[in-house]
Amino acid sequence: MAFSFTLPVRFADVDHAGIVYYPVFFHYYHQAFEELFRERMGARGYVDMLDKDKVGLPCVHIEADFLRPLAFGDDARIDVSLARLGNKSVTLRYHVFKVGDESGPAARADITCAVTNLANFTSMPVPDVVRNVLEILDAPAEPA
Amino acid sequence: MAFSFTLPVRFADVDHAGIVYYPVFFHYYHQAFEELFRERMGARGYVDMLDKDKVGLPCVHIEADFLRPLAFGDDARIDVSLARLGNKSVTLRYHVFKVGDESGPAARADITCAVTNLANFTSMPVPDVVRNVLEILDAPAEPA
Amino acid sequence: MAFSFTLPVRFADVDHAGIVYYPVFFHYYHQAFEELFRERMGARGYVDMLDKDKVGLPCVHIEADFLRPLAFGDDARIDVSLARLGNKSVTLRYHVFKVGDESGPAARADITCAVTNLANFTSMPVPDVVRNVLEILDAPAEPA
Amino acid sequence: MAFSFTLPVRFADVDHAGIVYYPVFFHYYHQAFEELFRERMGARGYVDMLDKDKVGLPCVHIEADFLRPLAFGDDARIDVSLARLGNKSVTLRYHVFKVGDESGPAARADITCAVTNLANFTSMPVPDVVRNVLEILDAPAEPA
Repeated sequence: MAFSFTLPVRFADVDHAGIVYYPVFFHYYHQAFEELFRERMGARGYVDMLDKDKVGLPCVHIEADFLRPLAFGDDARIDVSLARLGNKSVTLRYHVFKVGDESGPAARADITCAVTNLANFTSMPVPDVVRNVLEILDAPAEPA
Repeated sequence: MAFSFTLPVRFADVDHAGIVYYPVFFHYYHQAFEELFRERMGARGYVDMLDKDKVGLPCVHIEADFLRPLAFGDDARIDVSLARLGNKSVTLRYHVFKVGDESGPAARADITCAVTNLANFTSMPVPDVVRNVLEILDAPAEPA
Repeated sequence: MAFSFTLPVRFADVDHAGIVYYPVFFHYYHQAFEELFRERMGARGYVDMLDKDKVGLPCVHIEADFLRPLAFGDDARIDVSLARLGNKSVTLRYHVFKVGDESGPAARADITCAVTNLANFTSMPVPDVVRNVLEILDAPAEPA
Repeated sequence: MAFSFTLPVRFADVDHAGIVYYPVFFHYYHQAFEELFRERMGARGYVDMLDKDKVGLPCVHIEADFLRPLAFGDDARIDVSLARLGNKSVTLRYHVFKVGDESGPAARADITCAVTNLANFTSMPVPDVVRNVLEILDAPAEPA
């Protein structure tokens, strides 16, 4: 399944140079990640996974490129695919497109999360609750 | 017209106490304000007003109350009404409700913006482009 | 005691209009608040108050004015004074000055916090740990 | 020259899991970058470079690791070194240490910026104004 989430670049997402501040791209990626879990598990699915199941997905590694600037007035579509589903970690691939400009992504990233037991911050095998959300994602259409 | 915008409380909107950091409420209000202009003027209406017409609406005064905490997993609905449409300034009233809990708002604010000529940062009369967006809003159902 | 905290306006504190996004002023006020507790209680004093003593100070009411814009390249000095020390709540007064421009504040706010038992989110009397930090602050030099 | 910048983890830098939200680490890195330019060029040096010289340094590539969580109450020291000074781009290496825990970094990143003519968003050779700031930095003590 292709999963996408579109959001408007907000008035305050830009920096003094008038383009989206690069850390904000990671906030966009995380919002797409949250929306993926919302769509599959409902509004409280992810928070229950964290609070009741004590399963978290902290980010451990990132490789990211920024190719074209985004600005206020643009809409950003984030496409999410599954680059790797490991035993204790998962890598999601994100592409951001400026809506209406399909000449290429504005930015992209491979973000690896370690499945973590939040009770003691140790790594743990990917549980079914996470696997069920992620395994329906498409593989990336292209190499990173 | 009643105008509302609903957004999920994001994973990072909370602070160390686990509830939405109060400055984030003002970011929610501004997002509702941006959405109001988007709905009435299209995705590029507000940015064109700023960049081409050189009309801005900087905030000059706020009175705000915070009544019930919001947390990750909640959805927040922001209702916007028009408290005052003056000659050179406007006051919008915002209420945030936790979706599913209509016992009362989580927070509310009256936010006054001065209509400003961005070419020289001087105040100016409310132009039609702003008046057309705001005058369709309902008056507040209740006093502040 | 006069308490002040100075910070540089950051590259990303501004919005598309090139001036500090107004919710960021509240983040500045909160940083000054955190610095006040750090100076009086050490780096871990406030977090221990929250986590061990279960005492929190959520914001319940704000009155704020924004008078002159701040921009990237400016330094902002936040002065904190004690407007009111009540039985179960406290009101701090903040003024932000652009360093080098003492013609008047860029912004000011009265921010009221309710002393709160974080174990059950009920109000509680101002404990000594809070009183000791705040009562040394000067009263405001001017009415709000 | 070793360059370091220390900041307290702020009350709102954490997410629902109670640890610093990973995009905030990039905001920390950017603050250290801003402080480097402040120390070398004064409070207005960087903004003048952007606005008068029309030279910008947008981020184009990141490789980042997150090794140990940071939380509210921690102080974070960011060490900056120069991994590569190319013809049209520069790569800075950042390590974040939790102050008082020198067992290893909490996070690290190699961040590549393309020197950019902001008048037309094209790449340009590293100008002296940038070279003078960066070339005094130490090379990294260790490979990435």
